[in-house]
Order: sequence, then C-alpha cells, then structure tokens
Amino acid sequence: MIYLDYAAATPLSPKAKQAMLPYFDEKFFNPSAAYLPATEIRREYESAKGEIAHVIGAKGADLVMTSGATEANSLVFATVPDDAEVLISAVEHPSILENAKQKNYQVIAVDETGRINLDDFKQKLTPRTQLVSVCLASSELGTIQPLSDIARIINDERTRRAFAGEKTPLYFHSDASQGLGLMEVKVSRLGVDLLTINAAKVYGPKGIGALYVGHNARIKPQVHGGGQEMGLRSGTENVPATIAFATAILDAEKHLAGERKRLGDLRAKFKNLLAEKIDGIEFLGKEKTQLANFLPITIPGLDAERLIFALEDRGVYLSTGAACAASKGEKSPTLRAIGLNDSRIAGSLRITLGRPTTEEDVIAAADVIADIVSSERARLAK
Amino acid sequence: MIYLDYAAATPLSPKAKQAMLPYFDEKFFNPSAAYLPATEIRREYESAKGEIAHVIGAKGADLVMTSGATEANSLVFATVPDDAEVLISAVEHPSILENAKQKNYQVIAVDETGRINLDDFKQKLTPRTQLVSVCLASSELGTIQPLSDIARIINDERTRRAFAGEKTPLYFHSDASQGLGLMEVKVSRLGVDLLTINAAKVYGPKGIGALYVGHNARIKPQVHGGGQEMGLRSGTENVPATIAFATAILDAEKHLAGERKRLGDLRAKFKNLLAEKIDGIEFLGKEKTQLANFLPITIPGLDAERLIFALEDRGVYLSTGAACAASKGEKSPTLRAIGLNDSRIAGSLRITLGRPTTEEDVIAAADVIADIVSSERARLAK
Repeated sequence: MIYLDYAAATPLSPKAKQAMLPYFDEKFFNPSAAYLPATEIRREYESAKGEIAHVIGAKGADLVMTSGATEANSLVFATVPDDAEVLISAVEHPSILENAKQKNYQVIAVDETGRINLDDFKQKLTPRTQLVSVCLASSELGTIQPLSDIARIINDERTRRAFAGEKTPLYFHSDASQGLGLMEVKVSRLGVDLLTINAAKVYGPKGIGALYVGHNARIKPQVHGGGQEMGLRSGTENVPATIAFATAILDAEKHLAGERKRLGDLRAKFKNLLAEKIDGIEFLGKEKTQLANFLPITIPGLDAERLIFALEDRGVYLSTGAACAASKGEKSPTLRAIGLNDSRIAGSLRITLGRPTTEEDVIAAADVIADIVSSERARLAK
Repeated sequence: MIYLDYAAATPLSPKAKQAMLPYFDEKFFNPSAAYLPATEIRREYESAKGEIAHVIGAKGADLVMTSGATEANSLVFATVPDDAEVLISAVEHPSILENAKQKNYQVIAVDETGRINLDDFKQKLTPRTQLVSVCLASSELGTIQPLSDIARIINDERTRRAFAGEKTPLYFHSDASQGLGLMEVKVSRLGVDLLTINAAKVYGPKGIGALYVGHNARIKPQVHGGGQEMGLRSGTENVPATIAFATAILDAEKHLAGERKRLGDLRAKFKNLLAEKIDGIEFLGKEKTQLANFLPITIPGLDAERLIFALEDRGVYLSTGAACAASKGEKSPTLRAIGLNDSRIAGSLRITLGRPTTEEDVIAAADVIADIVSSERARLAK
C-alpha cells in the first residue's frame, strides 16, 4: 500500500499517541474540578496549549481550542454580522467558502498557480469589508499565499479608517491547516489577527484544533456553557487530544527544515518520473510557492475518478481535489479559479507526500500511475 | 485515593480504549476519501453511530455527532431565533443556562427535590414558546425529570397550535448527559424532539457527543464546511472517539440493570453511614427520583470548599456543585432553586459513585468525611 493523500489525513505519530494515552484513564479528571489531581491536569492542559501557541509565536492564552479547523473557521465567521462584507480567496477550503456564503462575500482572484492577485484584492477591499480570510496554503494546490503582503494592505486600510474616524473593524484571518508543520508559521510575521490550526494534518489526532485570537481581535462565542477557553468556547476540555496536538506539533517543528528538504527532493524525483513516463501530464502550481509535499497534477482527457479506483486496485491511494463531502459532484472552485478547462479539471489528481513516504514509494507509485494511465488511454483508444 | 466525582468525569473504559486505538494510526484515513480503506472507515463510523443511536431507540441518521454535550446544547439553542421565547428548568447545567441567556428565556420552578413543577410549566408555556429544554437528570442533584409528562403538555400545545392554524414551531429538548448509562433512555418514550448525549460521562472519551434530531425537528448548522453530518455539523469526523463512544455506551447499556442496583445499594450504605456519623447532615433530592449514583449532601454551617481541600489531603476527591468554570465564585442556581439557604448552599457537597466504586471505598470515605467534619467543627468551636 502506498498512501499519497497526506493533505486529507495524517496518522497519529507514535510519540503523540504515547503522550495522550494516560489522559484517557489514569489522568481522566475534569480540569475544572478543584482537587489536586484535577488541578494538575489543568496545569498540564494549559502547558500543552502554551507549547502549541509557542510554535506559531503566540501565548497559550491567545488560543481557543476547538474540535478542529472547521469549527475554528466557523467561529471566525460567526463573529462577523450576517450583512458584513467579507473577502476570501478563490482557492479556499469548503470550511471557508461555506462560511463565507452565510455572509455578504466576494472572492479574490488568483493567478494560474493559485496565488492571490493583490491588485484584485486592493480593488475589492472596501471601507465596509470586515473580514479577509485567505488560507496559508491551498488544500488542493499547496500554493502558499503572500499573507504578509495582504497584511500590509489591510494595515493601510486600517490606518485610513482610523484617520477617517471610521469604526468598522477589519480582521485578517488565515486557515493554516495546510502548511502548519511544513513551513514556518509565526503570527506576527504573517500579520494575521486570527489563525486556524489543526492537529489532524500534522500527525496529531482528529477532533482537535485551535483558533489563535490576536490581542486586537474580539470574537463572539458560538458554544455557550461552563465558560472554558476564556468563555469563548465552552465544554469540558479535550485534554488527551490537546496533549497529543502539542506533542505532534512540537515534533513537526523540530524536524521542519530536514523534512521540508526531504519531501521537496522526493517531490522533484516524483515529478521527473511522472514527466518522463506520462505524455501530456501537467503539473499544477509552481514549486517555488508550493508546500514541499504537494504534487497536484492533471492528465487532460482522462477521468480522475476512474484513475483513483484503478490505482486503489494496485494499492496506491490518492485523491481528486478536496476530500470533503461538499466537493462531491461539484467541480472544484479552486481548479476553475486557476483557469483549468473541464477536461483538465476532470483529469486532476492531488498527490501529497508525508512523513512515512519513502523514495521506494515514489518510484513504485510513479510506475503504477504511468501503467494505469497507459491502460486507460488504451481503453479509450479502442 | 477514593474518587467520588463520576458526574464530573469518568475514566475511559479499557474496552472503549482498546476499540479506539487502531483508528489513530492504522485506520487513520479521512472517511470522506474515495479509496477503499477510507470507505471502510466510513462504514465503521456510520455503524458506530448506528450503535449509539440504537441505545436511545433511534437510527444513526438521526444523530449529529458533536464535540460534546455543550456543543450539542448550543446547536439546539442556535436554531431558535434570538427573540424567541424559551423555557428551561431551574436545575439546568450551565451549558443550557448560558445558551438560554442568549434568548428570551424563563425558568420553570422545581420542588425541593429539584423536580420540575408541572403547573408552573403549564403556566409559563405560551403560544410564543419555541423551545423547552429540561435535563433528563440534574447534574448537581441527580434528580430525574418527568420528561414524558412534559412531552404530553407540549403535545397538547402543539395540537392546539395546529388547530388554531398557528405556525410557531415548538421543540422539546433534553440534555441527557447525566443519566445516560444509568437509566433507560428511549427518545420515543421520553417524547423529546432533540436529545443531547455525551461520551465523557459514560466511560467514553472526552470530546465527543451527539445531538439526536427527531424527524419533525429542523436544526440550523453552526459549523459550516465539508457538509459532514448531513450538512448539520461540518468537519472531518472524529472517528476514534465515535468508535469509543459506541463501545462505551453499548457496554453501559449491557450492564445497566445490574450496575444501577449495585450503585443504589452502595449509595444506601453510604447514606446510612453518613447519617450515623455526622449530626445535622442533610441529604438532597429523593432516592426514588434520583440517579442511583448520586448522593448530594449538605452540612449546614460548614464551608464545602474547605472540606474539599481537607478531603483531598486524605485522598478523597469530590466536588461542590457543577465542576464547570462558570459556576466558580457564583452560588449554584440549582441549590437556590430547591430552596436552600446560604448556609446550606455553602455546606453542600456532591458525592457521585461510579463503576470502579467499591463497598470498601464507601466505608473508608464515610469515615474520612466524618473525621474531617469533626475536625472542622472543632476548629470552628474554638
């Protein structure tokens, strides 16, 4: 089996699993209880939050733990009035797009690599814009967005509003689910007010994520109750998952440079092999501004869904576009936004490498993909 | 160590832990992906939902999985317009009370055992009431509410509205977090439209719960994205936690009758011992309408917080009222609603037994509590 869909899900790292296990039973206490074993759990929980926050250059108290990226993204959009103007990029994950649809939203155009068009952004940013949400990196293309350039434009608009005495708030949010653990992510350098992070893509467990809330941002809770997470997200803390998230993200941070290099080299090898073996294959995005583990491709004229089932028979697992229910049956807005025609969208596959991927995997997978493409082409030629 | 705070948190059962472990790594695939190992996870996930639903007499498709009871409760209240009239009982958990505060809410009075006053309910139910939320059992007293009587009154009002041609919807919701696994819970018998259940109180993991949504109820999502949970709660499914929830709740269901008897006997023994050893102790609620594991007490004139710290030194862990952040520093609305004066509220402790509790624990804990009360009284008498 060769799994090449690490952008959809990562296995829990053994270290993170080990770290979380005691919190299911021995250390199961409710962190809000008053007795010592519970207050110890509280301390360990807060310390894990601090470690997660540290990786993105923040403090534990800046994080609101959530059940994942989608909830964190929804929390951001829920803060903005329903009639407020919001701007999102054309390559956002459904968890941003579907939230934006609840508001008065516009889409910022991207170039053919999926990178945001800053002129289009400037033009669409109005005195009424209250939220700009642009992913750190596209979940379909791996294309990294120029967040600090966006932040600069947003700061200019904020300054203008301040001088004009306008009170409309303007927040800059980024969903960093794709990219965290594969590139340096520091909130101050990126210039974001709000940042979504997620354990399930960095070899942490499913069901845990967080929203970073900068000092100037005010968010409105959606989940009311016991007042946990500074009243911004009530509910008994998911202690084991938070502990595992901290372990996983610290581990990813530690090996970041080496792993980025290793994955980049594997991707280059994979790309060369595919280019050699498959006539007419096209590579989406551009390495220079792409996460090191992303290799999105298209083979015009073929049906990616058929390819995926054929690949599955040979033990190679990968995905067409986002592995999210909402995208089923719909053409990917991301691939349309970068200007692909129907035939190219239909033939597009997302290959994403991960920590367990080896050179042997890449060589074997390139062979299998080339094989399948050949037989599919032969079938169509009959 | 003798832990007597099972209403605040339960350890994960070994069986549930075993069941969930493979889903962290071997079976980590995103259930929305198209390849076989992922569609197998999807099937196992849906099957686990079916098992959970079966325990409450429902189908898997009736459940919206959430990150816990608080999120499920918030989902219910978010469905109701902000200016809508809602009714809650006077003994609700903060996750109901704080949600109700976002709406136009009124509180239904309870008797001195914490059981809802049906006459007061009938009087407060108006043609504008859109939601009635009454817990299955109080989290502070363990008092079981007469849900089917409430359902009958609600059905009468619905019939009246239907005949009068009134379109205002009226939903009946219950938070069954306390009680599930300790009494039979069947949605049709209870007559609820919406029911919150939670793994963390039935020896399942933290971070997973569900909202049962009856066929006549329509809820509005708060979390938008990939369209999971029939579009009512997006986000990659928390597969391991759902698998563990199913294992835990099936196990609790299987041993329900025996465990209820065992806990009831232990409670009776505990009660007799405390009554013998501590002059002036008062027992809250009434056994006949109380969960078998609840033994809420008050020792007027003493300070429960001091007692808890003294008990902790002797290895006995229990709680004052709800172990939720919101209740910190505030007097318990539940204890006030059952008519306790300040001295009785200040002296109240919540003892809750659990699966690991033994007769030896009960005997030892009764001795320790009596000891601590004596020394505290001696200190005060100086």
